[in-house]
Amino acid sequence: MTRVERWEARSEWPLTAAAFAFLVAYAVPIVDPAVSDTAQRLCAVVVWVTWGLFVVDFAARVLLADRRWRYIGHHVLDLAVVALPLLRPLRLVRLAALVSVLNRTGARQLRGKVVGYAVAGATLLVVVGALAVTQAERGHAGATITGFGDGLWWAITTITTVGYGDTYPVTATGRFVAAAVMIGGIALLGVITATLASWLVQRVDETTTAQQAATRAQVDDLAAEVRALRELLTQRGPTSDPPDSLP
Amino acid sequence: MTRVERWEARSEWPLTAAAFAFLVAYAVPIVDPAVSDTAQRLCAVVVWVTWGLFVVDFAARVLLADRRWRYIGHHVLDLAVVALPLLRPLRLVRLAALVSVLNRTGARQLRGKVVGYAVAGATLLVVVGALAVTQAERGHAGATITGFGDGLWWAITTITTVGYGDTYPVTATGRFVAAAVMIGGIALLGVITATLASWLVQRVDETTTAQQAATRAQVDDLAAEVRALRELLTQRGPTSDPPDSLP
Amino acid sequence: MTRVERWEARSEWPLTAAAFAFLVAYAVPIVDPAVSDTAQRLCAVVVWVTWGLFVVDFAARVLLADRRWRYIGHHVLDLAVVALPLLRPLRLVRLAALVSVLNRTGARQLRGKVVGYAVAGATLLVVVGALAVTQAERGHAGATITGFGDGLWWAITTITTVGYGDTYPVTATGRFVAAAVMIGGIALLGVITATLASWLVQRVDETTTAQQAATRAQVDDLAAEVRALRELLTQRGPTSDPPDSLP
Amino acid sequence: MTRVERWEARSEWPLTAAAFAFLVAYAVPIVDPAVSDTAQRLCAVVVWVTWGLFVVDFAARVLLADRRWRYIGHHVLDLAVVALPLLRPLRLVRLAALVSVLNRTGARQLRGKVVGYAVAGATLLVVVGALAVTQAERGHAGATITGFGDGLWWAITTITTVGYGDTYPVTATGRFVAAAVMIGGIALLGVITATLASWLVQRVDETTTAQQAATRAQVDDLAAEVRALRELLTQRGPTSDPPDSLP
Repeated sequence: MTRVERWEARSEWPLTAAAFAFLVAYAVPIVDPAVSDTAQRLCAVVVWVTWGLFVVDFAARVLLADRRWRYIGHHVLDLAVVALPLLRPLRLVRLAALVSVLNRTGARQLRGKVVGYAVAGATLLVVVGALAVTQAERGHAGATITGFGDGLWWAITTITTVGYGDTYPVTATGRFVAAAVMIGGIALLGVITATLASWLVQRVDETTTAQQAATRAQVDDLAAEVRALRELLTQRGPTSDPPDSLP
Repeated sequence: MTRVERWEARSEWPLTAAAFAFLVAYAVPIVDPAVSDTAQRLCAVVVWVTWGLFVVDFAARVLLADRRWRYIGHHVLDLAVVALPLLRPLRLVRLAALVSVLNRTGARQLRGKVVGYAVAGATLLVVVGALAVTQAERGHAGATITGFGDGLWWAITTITTVGYGDTYPVTATGRFVAAAVMIGGIALLGVITATLASWLVQRVDETTTAQQAATRAQVDDLAAEVRALRELLTQRGPTSDPPDSLP
Repeated sequence: MTRVERWEARSEWPLTAAAFAFLVAYAVPIVDPAVSDTAQRLCAVVVWVTWGLFVVDFAARVLLADRRWRYIGHHVLDLAVVALPLLRPLRLVRLAALVSVLNRTGARQLRGKVVGYAVAGATLLVVVGALAVTQAERGHAGATITGFGDGLWWAITTITTVGYGDTYPVTATGRFVAAAVMIGGIALLGVITATLASWLVQRVDETTTAQQAATRAQVDDLAAEVRALRELLTQRGPTSDPPDSLP
Repeated sequence: MTRVERWEARSEWPLTAAAFAFLVAYAVPIVDPAVSDTAQRLCAVVVWVTWGLFVVDFAARVLLADRRWRYIGHHVLDLAVVALPLLRPLRLVRLAALVSVLNRTGARQLRGKVVGYAVAGATLLVVVGALAVTQAERGHAGATITGFGDGLWWAITTITTVGYGDTYPVTATGRFVAAAVMIGGIALLGVITATLASWLVQRVDETTTAQQAATRAQVDDLAAEVRALRELLTQRGPTSDPPDSLP
């Protein structure tokens, strides 16, 4: 376990908590734009503080890494999430860790796990997409998404690819969010399909291996039988030899 | 078989009948809003009576259960369907039992069964979704779904994810119904895919097992041959010993 | 081969030709509504004559069947296609026979066949759907599909489930056609998926069977070896017996 | 390697470079219609020059082929791409060669390769579709796609089959481009599915073959054992014969 891995193991839960706090602070002013000034300022502070935590985490990981530039090169998305305000919602991807835990305690069967991940992933995608698109669209001329309710409705019709066209983003930022939601949905579907395919192959492999092991155990028994036969003959060899030495 | 299971086995058909009566009483005022007052009142009575049956069934199951709170915790959806008027249409899920019977008498081949379930499930989803969305939308300002025909058309374009956008829900209730129809459609697709995948694995497993059984039967024959050989040698052992005792 | 089967084998090509003639006569007045009166009348005659051929074919099959009512019960769709003017376009399903021939001469590999069937099925669905929807919609108030070009564009956006919503049916007949196109598209996808799944299973089965056959051939060789060994011992038995009869 | 194949191997990279130059020259006036006259003229020159290169390449291949008419018959799409101005964007299909190289240097695992091809194919489809539809639609009355940004947005909503209907082609050329993008997307999905299915079969085949090889090796060992036994008996045969010759 390298130093970076130790840091990551220790910082996993604090960062997930920070991501959760960020979700709340990010969501409140979007869901209810009429929230009091004090609440808005509090949310802004939480957003800044959690951002600070993410920056500290990334800096610590780079400093602890053996080959720093290479580490940054391999974690360029993490850097972008911290550095670019536009990618702020991606900090919520941290919450995927939460999903993995909720799941660990739940069903141990693969089918249950796949369903769990799919539901959690789709829900996260819909909620984050709805928040991001509402923030981008609200207040723009000609916007059809004017509140979080519209945003949620838009996210659901988009991720299911129904796309009625009663709500759709009109700003460049909103369209980027929409493309991210669509690509995220396809990626989710791809991961589920790939997991199922892997599971199919594994199940078939297990049957083949178990069946072959049974066959081989049988051949082993037979081989033992033949070996016993040989020993019988080899032992009897001398016993049967005397006639040779008769004269 | 616990007491709850015995109750469930006995109440299956009465409840399916109640669900069917509920479907008719629920559908009539939605499909034809100009139906006579008497018919409307009759339908309302049937809705209340069938609701009473569902309440009695749920109460009986809770009372018969060994660990009551745990039973409620595991059947929270059943409770919600009985307690929340908004989830009323979900009582029709009971009709799935009907589907399973229609199927039991039909094709016994898995392919036929999967097609049967898919068609029945999609039809139920479309009809119930159309009824619920028509009830939610009709009469609202700006509504594009103003009758059961529009509701059916909307449900078909939604479940196939075509989503032209000529009809779409505008009320919060209608959007909830729409989300349920979309999620139901995806769940249906997931169940069909999983069934097919299981069937693939099972078919391959059967072939592997059958082939291996044939191989093992052959190895068994060979083992019998070797055993016969051993017996031949063991029997001849004493026969061939005499030379030893020659002198 | 029963009498009905012999009739079907003989009438296959004449009926496919009739379906092709029907396609042309059905399409011409829809694609170009400004066609001359003579051409229109000619097309009407061809439609009637081909209808007559389909009626004669169905009547002949019923008369030749051993159990007539049962035959009608099993071919109720054929009856409906002949009896209901609304289902007229379904006569073109006959052209599927054409597809099967085009394919027979083409690629013999399953992958090529599946692609061939999918392309042919989708093309037939798009063209027939475009013709039927154009006929149903043209001339209606508020219709967005006013010509065959619009119909084709609508059919493509529908079968791919894109559904922009710039063109969509507004009449009840048009919506029935649309539902048929959507369901047809899903059925096509289902058939392709099922074919691929069957092919997967078959391929795996073949490998398993071939591999097991090789193993079993090896076990067979071994069994022959052991049998030879036994014969050797049995033959030598008498040879080695003399000592017994020595005294 | 025939003369044509040698030509194709040598011309692969020059033609890919030409396709890339064509992409830039084709894209610039579409992305920025306000580009200077000099740039526009330069782009036009590049388009003509690259077209010339494609013509020369096709002519050379036909001349080098053994059976020229048959070669043209088998490469009718290549001829159409060169001869028909409408199919000009298809010249960019050459860039698929670029994709194959980017991939060759990348991940060697099948999963990574499939993802790589899918991403590259979808990106090429979206960019080329956006360019072609923007060129076709811009300036037409009632057009909803008036710039490259709209074109990209339209291509993304189309290839994901969301199809809001806020942007859609209204010209015949634009609708042809749209149909090509949709069919291209379906073809891409089909290729990915087929690749995954082949990989599944191959993986299962490998396991079966490896397991059987292990079983057969074991049977081989057993056969060696039996052969040794036979030799033992055959050698002892004469040794045990003496008693015969005792008298």
